[in-house]
Amino acid sequence: MTEKKRTKITVNIHKKTYTIVGTESKERVELIAKLIDEKMNEIYEANKHLDTTRLAVLTAINTMNDYLTLKEDYDELITLLEEDK
Amino acid sequence: MTEKKRTKITVNIHKKTYTIVGTESKERVELIAKLIDEKMNEIYEANKHLDTTRLAVLTAINTMNDYLTLKEDYDELITLLEEDK
Repeated sequence: MTEKKRTKITVNIHKKTYTIVGTESKERVELIAKLIDEKMNEIYEANKHLDTTRLAVLTAINTMNDYLTLKEDYDELITLLEEDK
Repeated sequence: MTEKKRTKITVNIHKKTYTIVGTESKERVELIAKLIDEKMNEIYEANKHLDTTRLAVLTAINTMNDYLTLKEDYDELITLLEEDK
């Protein structure tokens, strides 16, 4: 059995407590929670009328945008490396 | 003035409508909304007791985890390229 140990980690995001169950390390889950909390608070400061669900969805959208931008950079790098062979 | 044109795009995510204001193209905003909608529905299927706010926060956490994994791969690639010089 090479199964990863499942962990249960409690974090605070935008004044609510979340229990994250998974195989990631405590440090990683806490880092992710900190980044999401910061992003949510930032979006909240600019849109104080938003309810928490909308705020969280916009945070997810924002993070996905960052992911896609990084993915484009990554793919471009891979293409350059392939061309360089 | 080289300011990007601000767009206002309406998308549906997990049975709710969101208006996204920004400088991204319609195609990109719709792609992001589709990816977030899929992720939210997937998390919902595995955790039907979750309220929408928690579901949205978990979707954001999940996306941030993907971002960090890709960032690690990207940084590793950059380090390898630097060593190769």
